[in-house]
Amino acid sequence: MDRIEVKDMFQYQNQEIDTFLLVTKKELREGKKDYYVRLDFVDKTGPIAGNIWNNALAMMDCFSEGEVVKLRVMVVNYKEQIQLNVKKIRRAEPNEYEISDFIPKTKKDVNQMSDDFFKLIDSIKDDFIKQLLNKIFEDKELWAKFSQCPAAKSWHHNYVGGLLEHTLSVAKICDFASIMYPVNRDELIAGAMLHDFGKIFEYNSFPVIDFTDYGRLIGHTVLGDQFMTQKASEINLFPPNTLMKLRHLIISHHGEMEKGAVKVPQTIEATVLHFADNMDAQTMGVNQLRDAATDPSAKWTEFDKLNNRYIYLG
Amino acid sequence: MDRIEVKDMFQYQNQEIDTFLLVTKKELREGKKDYYVRLDFVDKTGPIAGNIWNNALAMMDCFSEGEVVKLRVMVVNYKEQIQLNVKKIRRAEPNEYEISDFIPKTKKDVNQMSDDFFKLIDSIKDDFIKQLLNKIFEDKELWAKFSQCPAAKSWHHNYVGGLLEHTLSVAKICDFASIMYPVNRDELIAGAMLHDFGKIFEYNSFPVIDFTDYGRLIGHTVLGDQFMTQKASEINLFPPNTLMKLRHLIISHHGEMEKGAVKVPQTIEATVLHFADNMDAQTMGVNQLRDAATDPSAKWTEFDKLNNRYIYLG
Amino acid sequence: MDRIEVKDMFQYQNQEIDTFLLVTKKELREGKKDYYVRLDFVDKTGPIAGNIWNNALAMMDCFSEGEVVKLRVMVVNYKEQIQLNVKKIRRAEPNEYEISDFIPKTKKDVNQMSDDFFKLIDSIKDDFIKQLLNKIFEDKELWAKFSQCPAAKSWHHNYVGGLLEHTLSVAKICDFASIMYPVNRDELIAGAMLHDFGKIFEYNSFPVIDFTDYGRLIGHTVLGDQFMTQKASEINLFPPNTLMKLRHLIISHHGEMEKGAVKVPQTIEATVLHFADNMDAQTMGVNQLRDAATDPSAKWTEFDKLNNRYIYLG
Amino acid sequence: MDRIEVKDMFQYQNQEIDTFLLVTKKELREGKKDYYVRLDFVDKTGPIAGNIWNNALAMMDCFSEGEVVKLRVMVVNYKEQIQLNVKKIRRAEPNEYEISDFIPKTKKDVNQMSDDFFKLIDSIKDDFIKQLLNKIFEDKELWAKFSQCPAAKSWHHNYVGGLLEHTLSVAKICDFASIMYPVNRDELIAGAMLHDFGKIFEYNSFPVIDFTDYGRLIGHTVLGDQFMTQKASEINLFPPNTLMKLRHLIISHHGEMEKGAVKVPQTIEATVLHFADNMDAQTMGVNQLRDAATDPSAKWTEFDKLNNRYIYLG
Amino acid sequence: MDRIEVKDMFQYQNQEIDTFLLVTKKELREGKKDYYVRLDFVDKTGPIAGNIWNNALAMMDCFSEGEVVKLRVMVVNYKEQIQLNVKKIRRAEPNEYEISDFIPKTKKDVNQMSDDFFKLIDSIKDDFIKQLLNKIFEDKELWAKFSQCPAAKSWHHNYVGGLLEHTLSVAKICDFASIMYPVNRDELIAGAMLHDFGKIFEYNSFPVIDFTDYGRLIGHTVLGDQFMTQKASEINLFPPNTLMKLRHLIISHHGEMEKGAVKVPQTIEATVLHFADNMDAQTMGVNQLRDAATDPSAKWTEFDKLNNRYIYLG
Amino acid sequence: MDRIEVKDMFQYQNQEIDTFLLVTKKELREGKKDYYVRLDFVDKTGPIAGNIWNNALAMMDCFSEGEVVKLRVMVVNYKEQIQLNVKKIRRAEPNEYEISDFIPKTKKDVNQMSDDFFKLIDSIKDDFIKQLLNKIFEDKELWAKFSQCPAAKSWHHNYVGGLLEHTLSVAKICDFASIMYPVNRDELIAGAMLHDFGKIFEYNSFPVIDFTDYGRLIGHTVLGDQFMTQKASEINLFPPNTLMKLRHLIISHHGEMEKGAVKVPQTIEATVLHFADNMDAQTMGVNQLRDAATDPSAKWTEFDKLNNRYIYLG
Repeated sequence: MDRIEVKDMFQYQNQEIDTFLLVTKKELREGKKDYYVRLDFVDKTGPIAGNIWNNALAMMDCFSEGEVVKLRVMVVNYKEQIQLNVKKIRRAEPNEYEISDFIPKTKKDVNQMSDDFFKLIDSIKDDFIKQLLNKIFEDKELWAKFSQCPAAKSWHHNYVGGLLEHTLSVAKICDFASIMYPVNRDELIAGAMLHDFGKIFEYNSFPVIDFTDYGRLIGHTVLGDQFMTQKASEINLFPPNTLMKLRHLIISHHGEMEKGAVKVPQTIEATVLHFADNMDAQTMGVNQLRDAATDPSAKWTEFDKLNNRYIYLG
Repeated sequence: MDRIEVKDMFQYQNQEIDTFLLVTKKELREGKKDYYVRLDFVDKTGPIAGNIWNNALAMMDCFSEGEVVKLRVMVVNYKEQIQLNVKKIRRAEPNEYEISDFIPKTKKDVNQMSDDFFKLIDSIKDDFIKQLLNKIFEDKELWAKFSQCPAAKSWHHNYVGGLLEHTLSVAKICDFASIMYPVNRDELIAGAMLHDFGKIFEYNSFPVIDFTDYGRLIGHTVLGDQFMTQKASEINLFPPNTLMKLRHLIISHHGEMEKGAVKVPQTIEATVLHFADNMDAQTMGVNQLRDAATDPSAKWTEFDKLNNRYIYLG
Repeated sequence: MDRIEVKDMFQYQNQEIDTFLLVTKKELREGKKDYYVRLDFVDKTGPIAGNIWNNALAMMDCFSEGEVVKLRVMVVNYKEQIQLNVKKIRRAEPNEYEISDFIPKTKKDVNQMSDDFFKLIDSIKDDFIKQLLNKIFEDKELWAKFSQCPAAKSWHHNYVGGLLEHTLSVAKICDFASIMYPVNRDELIAGAMLHDFGKIFEYNSFPVIDFTDYGRLIGHTVLGDQFMTQKASEINLFPPNTLMKLRHLIISHHGEMEKGAVKVPQTIEATVLHFADNMDAQTMGVNQLRDAATDPSAKWTEFDKLNNRYIYLG
Repeated sequence: MDRIEVKDMFQYQNQEIDTFLLVTKKELREGKKDYYVRLDFVDKTGPIAGNIWNNALAMMDCFSEGEVVKLRVMVVNYKEQIQLNVKKIRRAEPNEYEISDFIPKTKKDVNQMSDDFFKLIDSIKDDFIKQLLNKIFEDKELWAKFSQCPAAKSWHHNYVGGLLEHTLSVAKICDFASIMYPVNRDELIAGAMLHDFGKIFEYNSFPVIDFTDYGRLIGHTVLGDQFMTQKASEINLFPPNTLMKLRHLIISHHGEMEKGAVKVPQTIEATVLHFADNMDAQTMGVNQLRDAATDPSAKWTEFDKLNNRYIYLG
Repeated sequence: MDRIEVKDMFQYQNQEIDTFLLVTKKELREGKKDYYVRLDFVDKTGPIAGNIWNNALAMMDCFSEGEVVKLRVMVVNYKEQIQLNVKKIRRAEPNEYEISDFIPKTKKDVNQMSDDFFKLIDSIKDDFIKQLLNKIFEDKELWAKFSQCPAAKSWHHNYVGGLLEHTLSVAKICDFASIMYPVNRDELIAGAMLHDFGKIFEYNSFPVIDFTDYGRLIGHTVLGDQFMTQKASEINLFPPNTLMKLRHLIISHHGEMEKGAVKVPQTIEATVLHFADNMDAQTMGVNQLRDAATDPSAKWTEFDKLNNRYIYLG
Repeated sequence: MDRIEVKDMFQYQNQEIDTFLLVTKKELREGKKDYYVRLDFVDKTGPIAGNIWNNALAMMDCFSEGEVVKLRVMVVNYKEQIQLNVKKIRRAEPNEYEISDFIPKTKKDVNQMSDDFFKLIDSIKDDFIKQLLNKIFEDKELWAKFSQCPAAKSWHHNYVGGLLEHTLSVAKICDFASIMYPVNRDELIAGAMLHDFGKIFEYNSFPVIDFTDYGRLIGHTVLGDQFMTQKASEINLFPPNTLMKLRHLIISHHGEMEKGAVKVPQTIEATVLHFADNMDAQTMGVNQLRDAATDPSAKWTEFDKLNNRYIYLG
């Protein structure tokens, strides 16, 4: 397959091209005298929007959200964004594509991250804590889920491997902090590694990220806390006080109740973890806003509604 | 033992009497040129304050918080409150008193409440939910803890049996609401019965109510949710969707995140439960403020700092 | 008239039908090269949207908001919602329809509600309070307004009879609460019955609900308080202290100042009333969100912006 | 009577003097081995604190809060504040003093304020509004109450005549604003004059300022609105639209709901009035903080808890 | 040039006219099967919207935002707003128009405002403060910028001369307040004159108002404070205490930290200035909302999202 | 001088000892029938409280706050805190003590911190930024102030060298973050080094930490920004864009406006700096709370009012 990737499409403006893309949103809209279809596509190099202007009702039944499609499109420049006018579209056959070509994922080297992650586990001195971490992260099935999971739906790290990337960064910041502050390093690192683990139950798997019912009704902090508690109970003589402090690290990591913390941080480790989590999430969030600013001459990003600001690029 | 109860002490103003009381707080304070001891006492009819003005340092070593003491006191009227000046004090011997005489407890009939509670369980139609409730509440040891537990440390229902009293009231309001609104009555009643169950892990046992480490670091919503989930897992084929909704009832009952809800109510049952819980807690809180206003001619209670208001008694 | 009702229109997809509907909104919008008209219709079975794509400017002058129209429409399915493409439209003649067929109203039996309401009044023991309630609710003109009035513009109980339905529910919850808590039942019931009475001055009458100038500039709490005070002044020797407490019930029922309470609840009755009001309003609000979810396979409602959540339907 | 006034007492440090003062607070407190009495006194030149160290229980029964007492005191300097150690104290006889010597009151000339006030009324052009103002302010009994009333309990203008002083200032600012902005001057001035009028029902009369039950349960905005509405209803043909706008001025003058506004300002006049009220209240509040700083070398006032700041005096 | 002004266009409904306008926004939008261009125009009499329906992509390249264009338009009435359908459009030649005809500006007499402003400066008694004000405002270049600058981007005073108009009004209110309150008039007036001076660095110059990078990243309070401090440092022996208080006036004028005050007002002058600023900004903001309500029969303005209200026009 | 240090005094309970201490607070209080003096002392090993019970008025005139005194005291244990009953006290002679023995200061090695600090400066690659940092930190007088200054009055790092310690930690965290995130390392490190520099103008020098007038009225962010801007202006051709970004780092480091940020962070560097600052301040704050818990068997610290929590020590 000779596929033109999203990142290269700007070179084909005002041309018709054939390509494959994954559909993440399909929405009928009303125009004048007729309907049209609004589409969001994605491949591993990024997202792109498109429209079916003609014969919308008929064509939209030929494929569904979450599927890879083969399509012929006119590439147009709309408000300084590249956009696709769909001429033909059909569901792609399984043998026509590799699903991995269509899933945005971390730009970091997964093997390297994996190595770093397990080296950090090896550095833990407390045997019980090390056992707990190995029990969870050496489980192949869990690791597969964990290392594939995004860390968020629509803000920072919202791509395959985002959870691993975020978790490792937070753990590294905590590792660094353990040099500076009189913390229990083993508990802090373990808390960092497990703080968002419940997200593997909170999001549906790819290609389209969405909340599970459990994610919406219970949430990742409680799910992660419960999971870890269950695993610790399977370790003979796991010290109750250690477990209690690890649980506190998980349920307090959002820092303030109005931001979803069940309890505010009440240990020095929980305080460090909260700020390490925030630093990584916010910094990577800003970074993604910057990456999304495709016009190289722009001095400011689009308005960031969530935080009520623009980001300066100059 | 011919003990004068706290509720009758106002009849002995400016007299010296002998009596027994339980010590809930003992605090050394500095006066002029010497120290004195500030004491909080309680018996089942209510709390009362006192002081050791003379020989404070020596006398305070003769007893501890949480113990019943025998004492000779002068009853004085201080700022329209009855207060005790301690002349003699010593630890009481076990055979000198019944501990139950010194513990404030619900004024409601515990047997009646117990009957009402189990009748409500019997009215549940869903077999799984009924099994779950029976598994928890027919466990004699758990029932003993549940029916003795206070519902709060210093606001509404802060006495033995307070948790049962509050839980039953909330369940009754929910039962009434189930006539008015299209709710799943079984889930709603079960949610009401279990919403604060985690408090049996959150408070230390009497005589002095305080938070456990688990209570402070994890909190009753997460502890109760985890406990119920564990119990449900022991029931063969317990429907996962039902469990998920029951869990949501527990973790959302505080209604708003800034008040400690892990999630806001997202089912109609969770909405009803939240307001039933609030109504009972707030109304009984106001009622306790009114009861604490001992001066029968007062038109207003003391200032209620928590809610920034006085309560009108007129 | 053989009218197809809104609730049955889904059976006529892709067909042209003739029917009658009441217009609640008419808005000119700009499409491409021409304008079109966006319409909201309603009949007693619910609301439905439509468009005039052709000849919009001419056709939109043939009728006004608030009128019943006769129309020929194509029924289409747009984003899983049934929608009407208007082919012909004209103002309906008075003899062609019954206005009552077009007004959404309470699904409850109004006679039954009326009976329940007056039985509650009869149960009041305080003569002055009973006189006051009778003076207000036995006034035929006021009753007509009260029993027709909606309880809100766009959230809970926004239909004919909504105010009566809501008021009765709140009064019943208060009646139930009066068994559980040491309240002055007469004052509490009267407060419940009158708490939203000012809404008859706050909303314009049907068919289109909107605020009156008085509603926007003064609001229903102050208007209701003033009205009740005036009525009480016409009763010889009405006890001033009772009046003061009834007034407090009305002006404090929103519970918190930032939600529009003039004062926070400062009596036990005002505390109960506030939570009874909240429980009914919020629960019925959630219920209406659930009813609006027309797709029987949906597990979640649309996003509830007001409360920042989805409601789970599973 | 040759009375030493509070403002001059600093000249008598470490001397015993005889004088007369009004008691505003009397509170029994516990010291070591005995009780003492804490007293707050006042005369028209300001407040001063004192203590009865000896024979406290006996002496405190000889007088009550709100009474003028004759007393012999030792004047002491305590923490850079002048304070009185009471040696003798008894209730003063009516013929021994003029009550007006003991009531703090506005430093402004009341006759001048009265003149200014009525001249502003005379400048009103709308006959109905002028009638309304005259009906209220030319009523001798109401004027007596209004011109004696404080404008607050413990913040700005908390002295006899404070309400008149504040009201006149707000009206003058509004008068000035009416030159700058396209407002209805008559409505704005009337709103200014009546905005706090309900305070005559909110505070008990001197010598000790406190809230009435009506003040606490209903509050001055609603009471003032109701009073004005009643008065307007007694004027033949009073224009309903004018009345509605005047009512809006009163009930919205606090500006934001969380600060007690029933509605936010929705007219240009209400916007002006809100800021004029705020400017006068806050500026005079700061001014009173500055006046309370008795040490002439101090560069900062005491901490202003209400606003979380110190005020700079340099 | 015989130009039809925006304010008169309503007289030409459904006619084609030729005119000149300044373009403030040009935005490509997608319609059905084709794109169209949305335009915002302005002349000195106000703003008006328009569209290019045909040949949009070609025509939109003929002119830019910020330019004056010559155009032929059809005047249409859309949702009770006058709107322009563009038939022809081209960049206007410099000799075809006067730029001043296209810039909205203060309706007040600039010479009169200038006179009033400098008379106020002349009334300052403190030589240092007067020197400082003259140094800043008599600098011709600075005055040109200051007197041309708007006071806001999209709320009150967002037109040429808006900053001068707002500053003068605030200074006049402060001048009036200096009669009523014991303030340092010289410092207060100077603070008023300089409080928003930093806005000359915060906004780009006309014709299109937008933030500078400095405005977004640093803001007008800090920029204004720094500028004044620099100017004062150039005056020999400028009293440090005076400078400190003037700086405090500038950095605290927003009143509350969440509204951007660096410090809350801690002097009586800063308190007055804050409320004077608020009164003028809010009142003129309401006034502009009223002016924008073009339908003379409307009783209410459009919804004011910023303040969550409608403004009553009746 | 053979001085017993505060940290060793617990060994002398119930003994009289002679020692030297620095007085940080002296306050006359009223006891029964007489006054006493409450004192706060400090030496470099920590703070301790004391009282003068006898002859208070005479003795308190013999010394002032901020002076070192010689004193004979009885060491007592009061509420599990060591406290001093002062028997004799007099101002110490300059030759009797070294002032450095009485000033609490950082426990870190100042030379090491200094080395680390300047090595970080050396690692800066941008010549202008390096020049700026050297200009500021190589100025001996400024360095003396900077390296002596506390970082806060009563929360984290409130001791000599606290500002250097905090600044260095924040810079190190930023240095670590510069490996993880695509930031401009030079600007980030410079921002970290200068973010709190204005505190050298905000606090009075030791021995007693308090705010300067400038600190209260203007604050360290604006003072620091202005100082850096001045210094940069003295460097030929300092790039304006770099300066603007450095200024933004300083004025936005508090992160949110309600916490005193003039602007929210709008660059990726400002985002990192804000969280690095928070992490260090909060973690060291928690650490100081833990250090203050002197009872080795305590499981919880005293209540931390500022953050509404206890800290777990278990």
